[in-house]
Amino acid sequence: MPHPFDPGYCREPFVTLCREYPGTEAYPASRFRIEWGPIFHRGRLDGSARVLVIGQDPAQHETVIRRILVGEAGRRVQGFLAKLGIFRSYVLVNTFLYSVYGSVNSAARKNPDLIAYRNRWLDAFIIGQQVEAVVTLGDLAAEAWQFWKATPNGQATNITSAAIPHPTQPESSSKGDKTKLAAATKAMLKKWNTGLQLLAPAIQHPDQAVQLALYGDAFQDGDRLPIPEEDMPAGLPSWMHEQDGWARRVGADDQKKRANITITVPKTALP
Amino acid sequence: MPHPFDPGYCREPFVTLCREYPGTEAYPASRFRIEWGPIFHRGRLDGSARVLVIGQDPAQHETVIRRILVGEAGRRVQGFLAKLGIFRSYVLVNTFLYSVYGSVNSAARKNPDLIAYRNRWLDAFIIGQQVEAVVTLGDLAAEAWQFWKATPNGQATNITSAAIPHPTQPESSSKGDKTKLAAATKAMLKKWNTGLQLLAPAIQHPDQAVQLALYGDAFQDGDRLPIPEEDMPAGLPSWMHEQDGWARRVGADDQKKRANITITVPKTALP
Repeated sequence: MPHPFDPGYCREPFVTLCREYPGTEAYPASRFRIEWGPIFHRGRLDGSARVLVIGQDPAQHETVIRRILVGEAGRRVQGFLAKLGIFRSYVLVNTFLYSVYGSVNSAARKNPDLIAYRNRWLDAFIIGQQVEAVVTLGDLAAEAWQFWKATPNGQATNITSAAIPHPTQPESSSKGDKTKLAAATKAMLKKWNTGLQLLAPAIQHPDQAVQLALYGDAFQDGDRLPIPEEDMPAGLPSWMHEQDGWARRVGADDQKKRANITITVPKTALP
Repeated sequence: MPHPFDPGYCREPFVTLCREYPGTEAYPASRFRIEWGPIFHRGRLDGSARVLVIGQDPAQHETVIRRILVGEAGRRVQGFLAKLGIFRSYVLVNTFLYSVYGSVNSAARKNPDLIAYRNRWLDAFIIGQQVEAVVTLGDLAAEAWQFWKATPNGQATNITSAAIPHPTQPESSSKGDKTKLAAATKAMLKKWNTGLQLLAPAIQHPDQAVQLALYGDAFQDGDRLPIPEEDMPAGLPSWMHEQDGWARRVGADDQKKRANITITVPKTALP
């Protein structure tokens, strides 16, 4: 049984970008979990991407896998992309290389080194490439895109973009309240539909021509799709991309919790 | 501050090898920790290796980093290679793709699919390449090398090889007894010296010409060297290659322990 994988950072400009990532000069340790190292992307680095997605920041599953958007948010993004006929020709990058710790303030978001380095990735994905549409997930990603649009490269580029709410914004905002969750999900999916309708005409070369099927009031079968094995580094076990919730930050106090990632192999993957 | 890294499996034959790794048909789950996925190598895949090292099996640090020999055994191997003037022109592969669980029996070691797949890696490293010497760590690795030597490719190849004890054999055999540990280390280093004296003349193109300095009765300063950042996948935090002991298998019973890897960021790496 063959195991497709993402080879990662094999060629320029990504080799140099991955050598030159910023640390605390751009990402203060008080606001970012720099101790886990940067997590750069997910998806196609070979120039075949038709859609660029800008997410927000990685969490603990991303930290183990070393690819972004591999949890529930990622599954919702896969579903959104599929509704545009995009099944593999995408590339995902985050607003932040490191997980946000606590909250991000305006100074942190506007750090010029942080922005400049991120803009090099956006240049690499867009300039001279075949991306036809850009999707940003949440306000910080929308801002990241606007910062790039303000650069000379950005000003010279005319590309359709849609700013949609972050995929797990309903969960973040409702904090366990099921009624609020349902309402927030419904509101988000309405905005996602607006995004789909804006982007679909711009995608001239989908992986598969699909009839645009808008979201309903809640996630239905097929709206959330698996993270493809092809997006994983070589050799990762299948449960890492097939299942969620297997990585947790555990600890008796904040400092212990910050220092921890606990990986638990799902029962179904054990003999 | 630039961060060199190992790009991994970017070209053939490694892309195909990493797609086609065997699972339980070659590695029964009762004897191997297949749930963590295969871990393939460490070091140069670009044909520049002058020394091939065959280790035994990966453990939990390897499982997180996704490169082999990154713990104490790896540090001892780096020191051994340095004594041969080899600082980067090496490639390391294991006898087994997966961590041994319990013990390996003869049937497991002689599984034809297991051996055939491993031989493809050895072919890739040796045939038409510039490896000048082979080192095997422990009996199972020595056997793996003999199995390859018995193949048509192996029989057609004349290359200097040395079988040396596995780097942490003293720890394994002495089980906490310090007197036994000292004696076992002394005995191992004597055999390592025999290996050095056998291999050194075969290495025509060291990274640096060095005077052969044999081991004493115990590990001294400089005998154990850091795992190079250049051998790590892109973006891993420095403490992962600079420090040891940050990954443990933790659990109240065997099954829970088998399902677990607990990662703890060293205090020095936290704000």
